[in-house]
Amino acid sequence: MKKFAVLGHGVVGSGVVELFYKNKKSIEKKAGCEMDIKYILDLREFPQLSYADKFTKDFNVILNDNEVTAVAECMGGLEPAFTFVKACLEKGKSVSTSNKELVAEKGDILLAIAKEKNCNFFFEASVGGAIPIIRPLHKCLAANEITEVAGILNGTTNFILTKMYNDKMDFSCALKLAQELGYAEKDPTADVEGQDACRKICIISSLVFGKHVYPKSVYTKGISKVDLKDVDFANKMGYAVKLIASVKKLDNDKILPAVMPMMISFENIISHVDDVFNAVLVTGDGFDKTLFYGRGAGKLPTASAVLGDVIDSVKHDITVFSQSWESSSDDTFIAPISCFTAKWYMRVSAISSLPKEYDGSKLVADNGEISFITNEMTYENALKLSEKLSASALIPLLA
Amino acid sequence: MKKFAVLGHGVVGSGVVELFYKNKKSIEKKAGCEMDIKYILDLREFPQLSYADKFTKDFNVILNDNEVTAVAECMGGLEPAFTFVKACLEKGKSVSTSNKELVAEKGDILLAIAKEKNCNFFFEASVGGAIPIIRPLHKCLAANEITEVAGILNGTTNFILTKMYNDKMDFSCALKLAQELGYAEKDPTADVEGQDACRKICIISSLVFGKHVYPKSVYTKGISKVDLKDVDFANKMGYAVKLIASVKKLDNDKILPAVMPMMISFENIISHVDDVFNAVLVTGDGFDKTLFYGRGAGKLPTASAVLGDVIDSVKHDITVFSQSWESSSDDTFIAPISCFTAKWYMRVSAISSLPKEYDGSKLVADNGEISFITNEMTYENALKLSEKLSASALIPLLA
Repeated sequence: MKKFAVLGHGVVGSGVVELFYKNKKSIEKKAGCEMDIKYILDLREFPQLSYADKFTKDFNVILNDNEVTAVAECMGGLEPAFTFVKACLEKGKSVSTSNKELVAEKGDILLAIAKEKNCNFFFEASVGGAIPIIRPLHKCLAANEITEVAGILNGTTNFILTKMYNDKMDFSCALKLAQELGYAEKDPTADVEGQDACRKICIISSLVFGKHVYPKSVYTKGISKVDLKDVDFANKMGYAVKLIASVKKLDNDKILPAVMPMMISFENIISHVDDVFNAVLVTGDGFDKTLFYGRGAGKLPTASAVLGDVIDSVKHDITVFSQSWESSSDDTFIAPISCFTAKWYMRVSAISSLPKEYDGSKLVADNGEISFITNEMTYENALKLSEKLSASALIPLLA
Repeated sequence: MKKFAVLGHGVVGSGVVELFYKNKKSIEKKAGCEMDIKYILDLREFPQLSYADKFTKDFNVILNDNEVTAVAECMGGLEPAFTFVKACLEKGKSVSTSNKELVAEKGDILLAIAKEKNCNFFFEASVGGAIPIIRPLHKCLAANEITEVAGILNGTTNFILTKMYNDKMDFSCALKLAQELGYAEKDPTADVEGQDACRKICIISSLVFGKHVYPKSVYTKGISKVDLKDVDFANKMGYAVKLIASVKKLDNDKILPAVMPMMISFENIISHVDDVFNAVLVTGDGFDKTLFYGRGAGKLPTASAVLGDVIDSVKHDITVFSQSWESSSDDTFIAPISCFTAKWYMRVSAISSLPKEYDGSKLVADNGEISFITNEMTYENALKLSEKLSASALIPLLA
């Protein structure tokens, strides 16, 4: 019998408990042993629940119980999550977490402790919710050099952009609807300004390229300035506007992670990922392109990923060292955003002639405004050109 | 230093060798040890290759070399693949294969030997080529009850249907083009009549529901009878026609695997999977829906999946028992196709009134023919209705 503890009984933590008891039999079959939850850590009390006797308010009870060999961290935020997770790993207890902030800011430290103590720090749930992405990246695709990852990693912004696109709502109306439906928080900053997506691309970048990438090193632009007009023009030109978190390996071996609204051709399947769904498109030398799609958030989807990790940590007696990366003392391995190369969408008022960088695709609006697409160029040059033309919009195209 | 052997130096086998030497350093990092290929089994000789010294024509050399702990089987077909794989597993050598026929017909036997000998029989490459699907199904989604899997599992037929849809080619022209491009074989029967997709859904069904499902137990209908007219009408009604291999758990706990052309709403992302790409849509209680997309065939994509398994088998000293299933003595756990429930598309000549089962969606063609969609009903009832109406087409909708 293997026993684990759940830290936090909020949305995700209660989902972990619910899903575990619902599917206990088949979970035990897959784990190859009997399993049970021994403790649930929460400062609140839930006397009405059938498993009320499992609650504790004292983390040390869990920490010092040697019978607890695995822990699901579902508290969120940096503290006390970091202190608790660190302590568990130091005692050799494997930890599975859905906490993207924790992994993006402290992943390298926690992975090093897990390695030293021969246990595991798993975080499948921290990126893409229910979508299996972490394990496929380091395991199933292990034979490949991965060169690029581009994803829709935030469901709230994807819902807002889908509404702008399908129902011609402007940003603020779509945000209001997202808040009413519970998809956006009262303070939606972390979602709409791209910080949430940024943390997730940091985790993916660290895993794929082997060095810790911190959120502060990643150029991040949200969707609050996306104009309904450009969503509409893009659509007419055959593109969807999505908030894309991406990372690419450049020719100079540096990597370039970034988060920004991008335009995606309808021929690319990721342009059809709508509503709160997330998707991650991975490019590598052997497999070419593969995409993972599913629910990026929500109680049971996130719980599904956390529990999958708990089952795996019960099965593994040793550290899975391919799911790991090194600390980074500086960010010189990260290229600046000025190097970001793409074709660019620009919108300008009526001008006599389009610039020589114009690639042939354009759209003229009723009011005389012209939307056009440039040849491939760096962000630095695109910015200069857009300033010269007094462009009202500048959006890169996902290649 | 871990050494492995490659059986067969055809398209996939040579891809395994090529990809291994290309990415040897990063592969060894992920495996946690040095690795090399010791033998390549092929009856032909390749004196011009840099690794010509590794070839052998004698399987017993590989079998009796204790230094070889893992084997990649890339020969295809049932024999001698079955005999060779069985012998390797009996000696405790882990085997990774891309051979869907072998897994679909003999998987239970080989998995039982692997378990007994404490080694692994891996087959990620046998379904969906480069797409990570086997490992996510039994590992990442382990906390869930999976209720349904539906996939586009054959690239050749998807290419043909895409051409019918995009370029209004009829079936035989599209098939000819696929043959010219090397996507279809000279004898295209296994692809176009659905046998290839059938083998793959057998593997998925066995893994997800735990009992061996044989191809002979699965209703299989190919695309050779799909009329361009219906592809066009479906399109106008908001659907794509795709060859879908699916399996569903029914209320009576039986499972219902089937392969047939189906209509998929443009709102479902799987309708946008075009050309030779494959995709698998999985439904479960916790994660809801998740989709895996990528190249389902080809030299390097398939090699990528085989090598990913070889790396994993080098890392694992023990049998991964969640990637396994039991033998089945009969097929009473499989429901008959007559129970298959769906809404149905039918095309009929002009009739005075549509049947009471009509669901409200219809399209009238220039020649007076009417295409319409029924309410949900079993295949048995749909067939009766279509016979009563002398319908020229009967295609289920993917829910």
